[in-house]
Amino acid sequence: MKLVAFLMAGPTCHHHAMWRHPQTENRFLDPAFWETLARTLEVGRFDGLFFADVLSFYNETTMARGGQMSLLDPVPLVAMMARTTSRIGLGVTMSTSFQEPYAIARVLSSLDVLSGGRIAWNIVTSAGDLEAQMFGKEALLPRNERYDRAEEVLKVCLDLWAGWADGALVLDKESGDFIDQAKMRHTEAAGKYVGARGVFTVPPSPQRHPVIMQAGSSPRGRDFAASHAELVFTLQHSLSDMQEFYAEMKDRVGKSGRNPDDCAILVSVDPIVGETESLAREKQAYINGLVDPRVGIPFMSAHTGLDLSKYPIDKPIIDISAETGSRGSFDIILQGTKAKNLTLGEAASHFAISELCPQVVGTPETVAEELQEFFENKGCDGFIVTPTEMPGSFEAFTRSVVPILQKRGLFRREYPGSTLRETIKA
Amino acid sequence: MKLVAFLMAGPTCHHHAMWRHPQTENRFLDPAFWETLARTLEVGRFDGLFFADVLSFYNETTMARGGQMSLLDPVPLVAMMARTTSRIGLGVTMSTSFQEPYAIARVLSSLDVLSGGRIAWNIVTSAGDLEAQMFGKEALLPRNERYDRAEEVLKVCLDLWAGWADGALVLDKESGDFIDQAKMRHTEAAGKYVGARGVFTVPPSPQRHPVIMQAGSSPRGRDFAASHAELVFTLQHSLSDMQEFYAEMKDRVGKSGRNPDDCAILVSVDPIVGETESLAREKQAYINGLVDPRVGIPFMSAHTGLDLSKYPIDKPIIDISAETGSRGSFDIILQGTKAKNLTLGEAASHFAISELCPQVVGTPETVAEELQEFFENKGCDGFIVTPTEMPGSFEAFTRSVVPILQKRGLFRREYPGSTLRETIKA
Repeated sequence: MKLVAFLMAGPTCHHHAMWRHPQTENRFLDPAFWETLARTLEVGRFDGLFFADVLSFYNETTMARGGQMSLLDPVPLVAMMARTTSRIGLGVTMSTSFQEPYAIARVLSSLDVLSGGRIAWNIVTSAGDLEAQMFGKEALLPRNERYDRAEEVLKVCLDLWAGWADGALVLDKESGDFIDQAKMRHTEAAGKYVGARGVFTVPPSPQRHPVIMQAGSSPRGRDFAASHAELVFTLQHSLSDMQEFYAEMKDRVGKSGRNPDDCAILVSVDPIVGETESLAREKQAYINGLVDPRVGIPFMSAHTGLDLSKYPIDKPIIDISAETGSRGSFDIILQGTKAKNLTLGEAASHFAISELCPQVVGTPETVAEELQEFFENKGCDGFIVTPTEMPGSFEAFTRSVVPILQKRGLFRREYPGSTLRETIKA
Repeated sequence: MKLVAFLMAGPTCHHHAMWRHPQTENRFLDPAFWETLARTLEVGRFDGLFFADVLSFYNETTMARGGQMSLLDPVPLVAMMARTTSRIGLGVTMSTSFQEPYAIARVLSSLDVLSGGRIAWNIVTSAGDLEAQMFGKEALLPRNERYDRAEEVLKVCLDLWAGWADGALVLDKESGDFIDQAKMRHTEAAGKYVGARGVFTVPPSPQRHPVIMQAGSSPRGRDFAASHAELVFTLQHSLSDMQEFYAEMKDRVGKSGRNPDDCAILVSVDPIVGETESLAREKQAYINGLVDPRVGIPFMSAHTGLDLSKYPIDKPIIDISAETGSRGSFDIILQGTKAKNLTLGEAASHFAISELCPQVVGTPETVAEELQEFFENKGCDGFIVTPTEMPGSFEAFTRSVVPILQKRGLFRREYPGSTLRETIKA
């Protein structure tokens, strides 16, 4: 079973009341906070952690009320966290929509070298026009073109990352030979959207290049993930939804010519652990009660690429979907709401209280059991763990749930090697 | 007197045989090396350190023979160094030619927040077409247009950095108010080259935004520096050259409407310290003797923006200058060579052995005296210190020269505050 922590450098991760929890520290601007958290997760033997990222505020309400946002660039954060840990993987989200591949490949490779080969690149194509506007554009490319561009960007990055053959760095003081030219190759890439020409400047890390992770949910996104991703993560509401996604995705990976085992599928969960079943339920009710439903609508809009603020709040969400044509992210929202026939407002509340992630609630034993059930019934290869309080959720989980998963033989007690790729392949 | 260390993440800084020195560690890919070095410089009370940067290899020879190159992106390096220090300033070079301002402002501000307000941005416009080619372009913009773009980029960054008024981050768990909208402003910038629209996502650091540093040497570059830079650095060969530059630059700063005291001018020096005068001279001869003159020509070409490889190696450099029309960087090379009427090949050797930086050679006492002379005779406000061995040059300097400068009352014993701007203003 694989475990990866979902982080954002701001007040909330998935649960929009996270920052309002009495024990949430809100030290998201303090590097010491992140360093300690990374150590906590490494003691818990997590495969990795990663920072989701967004390149603008979603809107005024989200900003004012502490909805999902990224207040810091993840690159320096991850660099700092790399230095207080030695095994845990460190994921950085970078969008393919705004930079040239060399800029992305260079900073990711630099992190990968400096962390001893523990970096993952969470590839996103960006979802909101406000992000494009921060970069001086009016709007994003249409979704399909964004993926065309993403394909080009990744292809060029992989080409750059193949620039140094083993032994290229000679470093012979005596002769003055520093790099063996014969072991270096030129990249020559000129695509429709991006390009690169020259010799890549960053030597390979112990895992050669970062692990590729992605959360594609539209058909095009799933194809992209099937072709390239070593870690896929997704939001599914129930075991049956997980199983459906899992089977479909593994099939896609196989059809793209890869071994389905080379692409791990992780589903997001929001564990709420209590000393007793009823304490856990009370905790859940308490934190969910702190949510401001207003932050849900803009975030759902950004997630789906639709302006949902223009619909009446009491309109059934299934009707909105029918009107607009369905899309991947939108379908996922529907999964959790169709049965209950929710209105837009109700769906927004559910969205904001992280019902997009199933909340797995109970004692350490019952939480471990539920994860085991998802895992053993081919719902997933592991979990993206998201917090409702920070850092308490991760402390509770690593201290009480992880030992049970270990005792049951479901989860590692030690890291198998030093790189992230070794960890996720083991 | 201000002191700033010149660093590059590779085999050489200015002296192209640095990596071949018997005591150079060549641990430029090891974060622990840089962290220790940052601590050494902080114990020596340096105002700051900065990473020069180049976005491609200069050419095959430079690559093969260990000339100047950047093997890592400076951002994660500086992030790591920030965490093992608490006062020293940390400079990152970022080019204005390839990214949108928001990308630059976001990562620099994130570093600035995470370091407690100790970041400087060394603004460059990039000098080589090979750099442009790594970013999928054929060539750089012409020099003047590069500066037009740089002006736009900086203007937008400053606008973004003014996005959060004091007290904008409310963070009130009780009411759920996270950010005070009334204290946030929208950036609306659409220029000829770049733009940005929206609310900046990174809160201000204790110094609000990074210190601006620049090394403009062309008239256009000097104007840019005069208008914007808080730290200017330059390469000058003799006290009289320094004095000329210093007077001219301070005058320019005044004419641009700023207080000349608000722009510190630092000149590069390469101190070689020995136990005795003759030991120091022997050290100098030894390290200079390790230089491969072949690495000088491509580097001079990149520096001047001229392809000098097409000229015969025995052609006097003054003739080449006359043929091509003089430029800022080229003039600086000439300063050191005109009197001696050097050929291209000889100039290239001088260039490669860091004669562009005066080598200040002697005992700790005589090195301190020479620096004092440059400083007190209005040659500069301080020095960019460059190494000939790593980390030995900085260890020797901080252990033996800095205490003398302190005893003479020329240099601080303690940092005046916690931010870089406080340090350089004090």
